[in-house]
Amino acid sequence: MRGMNAAAMSLPTFDDVLAAAARIAPHAHVTPVLRSRALDALVGAELHFKCENLQRVGAFKFRGACNAVWALPEDVARRGVVTHSSGNHGAALALAARTRGIACHVVVPEGAVRSKLAAIEGYGAALHFCAPNIAAREAACAQLQAQTGASLVHPYADPQVIAGQGTAALELLSHAGALDALVVPVGGGGLASGTTLAAAALAPACRVFVAEPAGADDTARSLARGERVTDFVPDTLCDGLRGTLGEQDFVILRAHGVEALTVTDAETVAAMRLLWTRLKLVVEPSSAVVLAALHKHRERFAGQRVGVILSGGNVDLDALPALFALAAEE
Amino acid sequence: MRGMNAAAMSLPTFDDVLAAAARIAPHAHVTPVLRSRALDALVGAELHFKCENLQRVGAFKFRGACNAVWALPEDVARRGVVTHSSGNHGAALALAARTRGIACHVVVPEGAVRSKLAAIEGYGAALHFCAPNIAAREAACAQLQAQTGASLVHPYADPQVIAGQGTAALELLSHAGALDALVVPVGGGGLASGTTLAAAALAPACRVFVAEPAGADDTARSLARGERVTDFVPDTLCDGLRGTLGEQDFVILRAHGVEALTVTDAETVAAMRLLWTRLKLVVEPSSAVVLAALHKHRERFAGQRVGVILSGGNVDLDALPALFALAAEE
Repeated sequence: MRGMNAAAMSLPTFDDVLAAAARIAPHAHVTPVLRSRALDALVGAELHFKCENLQRVGAFKFRGACNAVWALPEDVARRGVVTHSSGNHGAALALAARTRGIACHVVVPEGAVRSKLAAIEGYGAALHFCAPNIAAREAACAQLQAQTGASLVHPYADPQVIAGQGTAALELLSHAGALDALVVPVGGGGLASGTTLAAAALAPACRVFVAEPAGADDTARSLARGERVTDFVPDTLCDGLRGTLGEQDFVILRAHGVEALTVTDAETVAAMRLLWTRLKLVVEPSSAVVLAALHKHRERFAGQRVGVILSGGNVDLDALPALFALAAEE
Repeated sequence: MRGMNAAAMSLPTFDDVLAAAARIAPHAHVTPVLRSRALDALVGAELHFKCENLQRVGAFKFRGACNAVWALPEDVARRGVVTHSSGNHGAALALAARTRGIACHVVVPEGAVRSKLAAIEGYGAALHFCAPNIAAREAACAQLQAQTGASLVHPYADPQVIAGQGTAALELLSHAGALDALVVPVGGGGLASGTTLAAAALAPACRVFVAEPAGADDTARSLARGERVTDFVPDTLCDGLRGTLGEQDFVILRAHGVEALTVTDAETVAAMRLLWTRLKLVVEPSSAVVLAALHKHRERFAGQRVGVILSGGNVDLDALPALFALAAEE
């Protein structure tokens, strides 16, 4: 993707988001929107939490994967799908493929977390191990595509994936009415750019913010510089937000003046505890960045109606004590 | 209460549950009902989870407290309410009193958990400390009643509290349609007896089960013996289920042939982890007993449609590592 210019890129539009909503409706949940007086008081704003942790596979990722799988022509779909991911996207694509009854191959790095691999296999996908670097996993994907004819479904640099992720904001805006702002986490940017497309079409006055760990702030730096920053080593416990902002995602966020807000991991873990305690929801650190950002920058949201997407809830409970201890140390 | 005979007791009826539903409607949430394919597969039944952890104050207790507060005549209400509780009922009564704009006094034992006390005070109630035994707290309550004219709202031995707790099952039965069984936790028995009243009226074919920690199995023994067992020392980490089954509650459960299912604390913590992981909900151990009981006795629920009330989500996150370690040891 790098170096590709915007004109040559296939950029999704709001119509693609609407088409995605219709396509995934038989398979995905319309997730609830929850409120909390205590969190409203803490931030000084009216917060509407879209609970994608209650989506199938426990993350918004199912929306994009499901849309990509069902957008394939029948003869192409029959050859299956392939991706590289050791996280939520792998599980999401595996389940999406199962809903269509087609094969799914997931390339995973050696040493990936066992529970995540079990989830991917549990949904019926074939695991293919490779060395833990980008070159190795891209080569493994290419080889599988060549062998099987399967279609690559990239976690975020894919127009149908972006359009699918946009359906969460579509539902939230339909449910909550006029919002002053939307805040979503950003890693590769699929959720952020899909949300931006939905907001621009349905609520042009609604500002979109992306929340990002300071240890993986390539989006903040890319938007500030006006050029994608791709040369960085992520250092954050938010395992869902370590990816590099995709080229299409960058173009969409930049075109709509999206702003990035960065937070430390300690702020994120504190926010995660608040979400667990106040909303009674299990959300992962990569989701809690949004509340951390809202709290840190609360003067910018004072008195406003704010939509928040809680992106996922896949947490390793055995890792919690270490997570809490880390936040307490900082 | 002990020794009082059934004829002399004030027993709530299904009409009281209906009246409670109307009375609390402006104040309480209609909580969502969630499903999980994974948990259905684990138990071999179709489970409908009524999420009272998402109720105000994070527990079903708000229903009963709110009903009791709003059922008081205006001149009586004006003198306030009083109770003894260091847990969810104290917070629930405090918030219920605030919704009516009346004073609330909560007698708490010295040494009670600080976070729970902060919650009670946060809702505007006055705390009154006493020695940690039943005689001391009953004396403190009586003294406050004499001084202020406040009405006592007992956590479970109160017809209006029982009727209010029954509204959770009322909503669940309305939402889920015909159920073969309902399973709820039992401590003092307010939720269990309210649920029983609702089920008996709306779904006479629906069996009611109560789930109970083996370390506080007075309900199981009381129902087996046909007489209330009150002389026992609870030994369970389910802090919401250490109370003794109330006399009215016992009469209602016994009259309707309710069955008790007991589980160990280790089984409960394992079930709690499953609920966190699969439903993405924070539920407290006292809620998880229901899933533990369903799993342990799954042959009795095979293929059935089962309603489950997840009673609360107030967990001390700092105590989690110890909780998990305890379950792993057993």
